[in-house]
Amino acid sequence: MDFHRYQASCCVLPDLGFVLETGRMAIAEEFLAEKTPLISKAFEQMKALEAGAIANPDEKRQVGHYWLRAPELAPDANTRHAIEETLSRIMAFTRKVHDEKKFKNLLVIGIGGSALGPQFIAHSLGLGKDNKLTPYFFDNTDPEGFDNLLSTLELKKTLVIVISKSGSTPETRNGMIEAQAAFRRQKIPFAPNAVAITQDGSQLDILAVREKWLERFPMWDWVGGRTSVCSAVGLLPMALQGIDIVKFLSGAAQMDKATRSWTLENTNSINPQNTKDESSRSTEMSRAVTHNPAALMALCWLNATGGVGAKAMVVLPYKDRLSLFSKYLQQLVMESLGKALDLDGKRVHQGLTVYGNKGSTDQHAYVQQLRDGLNNFFATFIEVQKERPSDYFEVEEGITSGDYLQGFCLGTAVALEENFRQSMTIVLREVNPETVGALVALFERAVGFYATLVNINAYHQPGVEAGKKAAAAILTLKKEIIETLKKSKSGLTAAELAQEISSPSKASLIWRMLDRMSVNAGYRIKMIDDHNPFERKYIYEA
Amino acid sequence: MDFHRYQASCCVLPDLGFVLETGRMAIAEEFLAEKTPLISKAFEQMKALEAGAIANPDEKRQVGHYWLRAPELAPDANTRHAIEETLSRIMAFTRKVHDEKKFKNLLVIGIGGSALGPQFIAHSLGLGKDNKLTPYFFDNTDPEGFDNLLSTLELKKTLVIVISKSGSTPETRNGMIEAQAAFRRQKIPFAPNAVAITQDGSQLDILAVREKWLERFPMWDWVGGRTSVCSAVGLLPMALQGIDIVKFLSGAAQMDKATRSWTLENTNSINPQNTKDESSRSTEMSRAVTHNPAALMALCWLNATGGVGAKAMVVLPYKDRLSLFSKYLQQLVMESLGKALDLDGKRVHQGLTVYGNKGSTDQHAYVQQLRDGLNNFFATFIEVQKERPSDYFEVEEGITSGDYLQGFCLGTAVALEENFRQSMTIVLREVNPETVGALVALFERAVGFYATLVNINAYHQPGVEAGKKAAAAILTLKKEIIETLKKSKSGLTAAELAQEISSPSKASLIWRMLDRMSVNAGYRIKMIDDHNPFERKYIYEA
Repeated sequence: MDFHRYQASCCVLPDLGFVLETGRMAIAEEFLAEKTPLISKAFEQMKALEAGAIANPDEKRQVGHYWLRAPELAPDANTRHAIEETLSRIMAFTRKVHDEKKFKNLLVIGIGGSALGPQFIAHSLGLGKDNKLTPYFFDNTDPEGFDNLLSTLELKKTLVIVISKSGSTPETRNGMIEAQAAFRRQKIPFAPNAVAITQDGSQLDILAVREKWLERFPMWDWVGGRTSVCSAVGLLPMALQGIDIVKFLSGAAQMDKATRSWTLENTNSINPQNTKDESSRSTEMSRAVTHNPAALMALCWLNATGGVGAKAMVVLPYKDRLSLFSKYLQQLVMESLGKALDLDGKRVHQGLTVYGNKGSTDQHAYVQQLRDGLNNFFATFIEVQKERPSDYFEVEEGITSGDYLQGFCLGTAVALEENFRQSMTIVLREVNPETVGALVALFERAVGFYATLVNINAYHQPGVEAGKKAAAAILTLKKEIIETLKKSKSGLTAAELAQEISSPSKASLIWRMLDRMSVNAGYRIKMIDDHNPFERKYIYEA
Repeated sequence: MDFHRYQASCCVLPDLGFVLETGRMAIAEEFLAEKTPLISKAFEQMKALEAGAIANPDEKRQVGHYWLRAPELAPDANTRHAIEETLSRIMAFTRKVHDEKKFKNLLVIGIGGSALGPQFIAHSLGLGKDNKLTPYFFDNTDPEGFDNLLSTLELKKTLVIVISKSGSTPETRNGMIEAQAAFRRQKIPFAPNAVAITQDGSQLDILAVREKWLERFPMWDWVGGRTSVCSAVGLLPMALQGIDIVKFLSGAAQMDKATRSWTLENTNSINPQNTKDESSRSTEMSRAVTHNPAALMALCWLNATGGVGAKAMVVLPYKDRLSLFSKYLQQLVMESLGKALDLDGKRVHQGLTVYGNKGSTDQHAYVQQLRDGLNNFFATFIEVQKERPSDYFEVEEGITSGDYLQGFCLGTAVALEENFRQSMTIVLREVNPETVGALVALFERAVGFYATLVNINAYHQPGVEAGKKAAAAILTLKKEIIETLKKSKSGLTAAELAQEISSPSKASLIWRMLDRMSVNAGYRIKMIDDHNPFERKYIYEA
């Protein structure tokens, strides 16, 4: 590619040591020009959101994650105060914990946004042996997962942070109850080791007050789970680990500043209502967009996926530390953009699939398919320039491991391009709290812009309720199963039990549930084997 | 769903405690009947492959991973002997290591199949504190990744296993060289702690002989990287960790037996050439296929994706231990099926995208999109019935964490079905060496069948060469850059340097490379900043 065209395709933020390179995304200037009205609308909506509009209509909530790193932009003094006060309290609490040296482990109990952010941060910014506290996570309701982790932790020296906005997320609540039980078994009081991060007045909040937990920090209804990493959810574990949260917030704020408006210098330089002729507007537009990495990225997504998610985003950071970023992005992107209806109520079934781990590792897993197979993706490479803490070291004459790492990153982009597969690349000077904060903020903003471009709401999640309801129904069914089985001396088959509770259509669910319980002694369900596994009888043994 | 229809959709292997449930995959009996000739062909090709046919035409190689767990099926006595002898040697070596108690850590250096299999096994079957040796991995060429891990390992007590079939995989070779250097810095001899797994006569093999490494184990040209977990590649780390490799092989062998032929009882019960009328053949066919989980699974994939990979496979094991399975499957499935050409040389760009982590965690990340958004996937749930090593424990009256886990698994399948999203479920009695071996063998066979169904070769990887070549060109370019820069006293910009070496089209690559080197002191490249970052001059400082 011609070097001048390459430069025009890049967005550089020198202060952050950040480059977004889009030359392999096949964006035409005409496309950018055509999308001017849409991207203008995206900026307007973003401005309204940042000013405090109700951007989550389902729950009638403001969407304020941008205020978390720029409290002075909060729409009212109370909000600003709450943010600033919480930040001070996090820092004071952290100092106290570090000074007292009572704790060496951190057990974070959360799921979704309450785990993915802290996990990504712990992995990308963690200090290894220099961590002030070593972080561990409960991010599921797997009994064996609880057992395995609890068996390795010295509980007395473990600070437990329970994170749940509603305070009633079942996985988190279960993790908390299992952790409490482990403390009890070892006769260690739980409350002096426990911190809650939750909404004021939630079940969890009430519990923490009643039991006199060590500390409580707020979650606010105007911060969504998937954008909560700049709230106490992300900041408290980060600070306790020993990571500089002020720099993290500053990195996010810098990226916000670079992506808030049209150009770095002048938000009004492009105005769709102005009188310039089309071609000069188009030129100016493309220049302006290349100064805003979030807008540029959102437009690249739009171009690559046709605005209907026709291609997946494969995220490939060439850096071990960043290997959890794609998991973090799966939630941020897919939960924000995977929507049935658009803003006009039209059925659209939108989305943008995200997957990936790290390079060059993933090259050995599936670059075969990326290059030769389905052209159903675009790649997002991430290169980190700063290589290692230790001294320069050559693995062969004149060549380092880092040369190889970059060679694979650049080489794969070239090999994909040869076969007409699109990719973009983010170059970071180094991985540090500032650049990781910036990375998070970049994708938050890009997701917000893209949602406007495809006319959907990025800030609600109406589809997750159905699964919760279905799961609750299963638990109710379980109780019915046990009650019914208790009444039968000779036992029942799944079909008989379904008949008994007048739910013949649930026989297959009941079979799955009975069979699982029969494998675990504690449920007291004995299975009488049969040649046909579906005809097994199950007996409740009191 | 009607319980009888449900049963017909299930494949049960009682001895393995295994169920494959496909009722939500919308397979019609007519579809199965229509595919009879194709699936017959798949069985024939599989039979030929197992009998020793050249199934990897690019490299003129047999494909023998099925022999690894049934050496008596190997096509010749030498192969059989090699497998059996290697297995004995692995067991003898492991006994010796365990008895001598010299080592407590295992550092596995490998990438692709030489890492993904051992990592999946270590995570799914690992014994936590009861591991005989604790496994760690180098699976990349990230200098910082090397540093971080090396800084935490007590090298004297670390057994290093270097795994590379060719013996020249750059990431693995780099990892080995960096590990050797760390041993040298601490004045600990490397060879007595080092084991090679590689092809006879490879670069690595020659090195291991010359330096008198502790032990060497073979890789054979008839075992592909992505199906090498039943060779020394998977077995040696597994055995050293303390996992029962005989049971692992036995589980794989049992699944092989259940998937090798038409039905469990009688391979000839369905014969396309027989004289039965269409409708009875169709019925019998669907019955036969439901007895072969690999064939059933491959047909489900075919039906769901239209045989063109139109939907991705989302893998969701509801078990923390199995959370690396989707990474393992990404390689097995995507490298096998992601092909440009079909067996007739026609350009098809095939593939089957795989992603996923674990349930119920991922529900909080992207079930919003799965249920409401793009219908571009089918889910593969994995449920494990056996819950936990510790005692039965209720988180609320009559309900355990395990009830919740199953509730979310079943509930999500139901919630997806309501919105016409397909899913299948694998139920495992428990996670143990036998069932994990079976799981691996199931997907190996399903991938093989599916390749025949869509008329491609699953056993080569022609597309990975391009990336390697492109990366090698980058390393050559780096040397040119350094040489050229050494001759310039006042430094050069990227554009000037590109001009100097007569490669103006490479200016953007050169800029990326120069800029990275300038950030790392060891390369001796000084950058002179400029208002325009693309116009920076770079100087070599001797």
